[in-house]
Amino acid sequence: MIRKLDERSSLELLRKKKSGRLGCVLPSGEPYVVPVNYLFDGEHIHLHSLPGEKIEAMKANPNICLQAQEMSVDGFEWQSVIAFGKYREVEEPNKTKVLTRFYKAFPRFTPVEAKLGREYIPENVIVFRLKINRLTGTEEHF
Amino acid sequence: MIRKLDERSSLELLRKKKSGRLGCVLPSGEPYVVPVNYLFDGEHIHLHSLPGEKIEAMKANPNICLQAQEMSVDGFEWQSVIAFGKYREVEEPNKTKVLTRFYKAFPRFTPVEAKLGREYIPENVIVFRLKINRLTGTEEHF
Repeated sequence: MIRKLDERSSLELLRKKKSGRLGCVLPSGEPYVVPVNYLFDGEHIHLHSLPGEKIEAMKANPNICLQAQEMSVDGFEWQSVIAFGKYREVEEPNKTKVLTRFYKAFPRFTPVEAKLGREYIPENVIVFRLKINRLTGTEEHF
Repeated sequence: MIRKLDERSSLELLRKKKSGRLGCVLPSGEPYVVPVNYLFDGEHIHLHSLPGEKIEAMKANPNICLQAQEMSVDGFEWQSVIAFGKYREVEEPNKTKVLTRFYKAFPRFTPVEAKLGREYIPENVIVFRLKINRLTGTEEHF
């Protein structure tokens, strides 16, 4: 049975997961999807990226989404949520605070930063956030 | 070291994987990302869906993408590809052929169809394909 997830369960899934897929729209009108690590504080989803096509696309069209999911080992039961919102770059002093939280949360998943030590912040890294405007969730159970 | 994947390796990853994320653009201009199972024959990526918001969005704006990835157990090494193309619905008699391939490929991952038996085709299921216009791949190795 496929059914909608209520807001509470959707927020819970977002909180529990730390990786998902970021969706944005390229200037060509094409959708673009990339794997990302994220941190969710209950209101904003924080992300980081090096400069490039993705960042330029989000500056031009700030409509973005984050999709996260959880699946049972057998693949039969799953939950998936999509958080929709706007891209907004995070500037100092908050940028350093958010990056410090990333280093703590992903000691192994941000290997470059982890290797360099928690005090090191790559000069060109961009921190941004998605403030959730709309949240949809779906689940399938048997 | 993060670097581009060449076309051969990108195609190889697409062939090896059977699940990924479908990206499309909603009429509101927002990106939309959902987990999907797919079949890739070297040219087209075949997918299926029940009718709904996603199908309506792709009919209105046929720009879609499929993102697939592979990650090492420790999360340090990964490959990710994005295949860009256009939504096109698959009609009979090809629709039945594609669905039959889905039933064979996903005996456990399409539980509704598997339960109902391979001969059963839900009347309202939609089969569509993405013909790859552009393929980008990225990998990180240490």
